[in-house]
Amino acid sequence: MEEQVETLGKSFVDHYYHLFDADRSSLSSLYQPTSMLTFEGQKFVGAADITAKLRGLPFDQCKHAVSTIDSQAAAATGGIVVFVSGSLHLLGEEHPLRFSQVMFHLLPTIHGTFFVQNDIFRLNYG
Amino acid sequence: MEEQVETLGKSFVDHYYHLFDADRSSLSSLYQPTSMLTFEGQKFVGAADITAKLRGLPFDQCKHAVSTIDSQAAAATGGIVVFVSGSLHLLGEEHPLRFSQVMFHLLPTIHGTFFVQNDIFRLNYG
Repeated sequence: MEEQVETLGKSFVDHYYHLFDADRSSLSSLYQPTSMLTFEGQKFVGAADITAKLRGLPFDQCKHAVSTIDSQAAAATGGIVVFVSGSLHLLGEEHPLRFSQVMFHLLPTIHGTFFVQNDIFRLNYG
Repeated sequence: MEEQVETLGKSFVDHYYHLFDADRSSLSSLYQPTSMLTFEGQKFVGAADITAKLRGLPFDQCKHAVSTIDSQAAAATGGIVVFVSGSLHLLGEEHPLRFSQVMFHLLPTIHGTFFVQNDIFRLNYG
């Protein structure tokens, strides 16, 4: 069970950043109307607003490098909580930004997949 | 509603670190048998094991300084997800450790309070 949670968490994170780095608009498929994103303290609700925020970030091409992934079963939801840390490389910038992409709280869909109910993003300034 | 979530998250974080810095053993009151802690990649389940891990950390006196708190309602659980970042000052050490204390997933108890269902801790090495 715990191994399955780790595997699901890792698969999700790989998929999420693959979409993010290839075409941010396609991330809308991973959010639903109830989804919430807190991005550097700013709140967005629903797939449309969340995707608009992510699409509007002031850079075009980027590449995420994931350092750590921690996943746990979220009792009472059938979901998973995932914490990710890593770095974000922007095209033309020499130094990557370090980030803590907390947390995803994933909930199961009726199709046996997961969507992002809760998403909190913070950069690390160090 | 959203303001209430922020206020609850902040109250919880204040309370948690107050207990942590005053007497780590007393944190057991905030966990239950189903609770999970992932501490730098190592998993612990249940209030007893979690408290043993926290009590056994290789320092006596410490003081947490919180930098950011992000809270969201966790749909389908009546709970709250909270992400905290900050630093940890150890007695006798000049330089604080930077941490990302993700995430708490708090669930309501039958007494109208909250307990920690999910807890993931990572230090930032920068």
